[in-house]
Amino acid sequence: MSISNLKFDEKGLIPAIIQDAETKEVLMMAYMNEESLRNTIRTGRTCFWSRSRQELWWKGESSGNIQEVEEIDYDCDGDTLLLKVKQTGGACHTGHKSCFYRGIKREKEAEKVFDPEEVYKKA
Amino acid sequence: MSISNLKFDEKGLIPAIIQDAETKEVLMMAYMNEESLRNTIRTGRTCFWSRSRQELWWKGESSGNIQEVEEIDYDCDGDTLLLKVKQTGGACHTGHKSCFYRGIKREKEAEKVFDPEEVYKKA
Repeated sequence: MSISNLKFDEKGLIPAIIQDAETKEVLMMAYMNEESLRNTIRTGRTCFWSRSRQELWWKGESSGNIQEVEEIDYDCDGDTLLLKVKQTGGACHTGHKSCFYRGIKREKEAEKVFDPEEVYKKA
Repeated sequence: MSISNLKFDEKGLIPAIIQDAETKEVLMMAYMNEESLRNTIRTGRTCFWSRSRQELWWKGESSGNIQEVEEIDYDCDGDTLLLKVKQTGGACHTGHKSCFYRGIKREKEAEKVFDPEEVYKKA
């Protein structure tokens, strides 16, 4: 499989699901363009495209909470990625391990694993 | 959390990651509009919006490979869903358990769990 066979959308983006390689918890979803995917493959650390800031975004750049990539899978249509990673700290900017810490059917939120005010003020 | 607080995109869609509740394997990603999400909550079975066919799509309608929903989580931004399900058969139309059966860094494809020619000709 070559990157050129993947289907990027009309904005040149492909959604990337990030999963903890060990616990299998789904940590977050973000978007990659071709450059950020190539950066990810080259360095072994996740790099995304920020749709709000319209720029490349290295995960953990501010927080230190990097993701080391163990596997990059793609789906049957070639239009979604699944990356299995080793997550330092927590993936979510709110201090939770996973961005999916709340549920429509859940009674309780997941607990925080770090204090975002402490972590992001270092940046 | 109310559905109206979720952020559907400019096409009225929200990506939904589907995860096996027991094995935690990520099975597929598809899109929901508000109606398909309400159908999913009401019936406890996944319903999506097909972007190619532009219609509601009940998962398992042709194949019998339905998904019974155990949990519906949403991420910190409220713009992505994570559904934990009990999957009958396989999630992928190719006969694989997961749509993510191939990888950029993998040597071997995952094995099929059903024969799609057999399953879909029933429809």
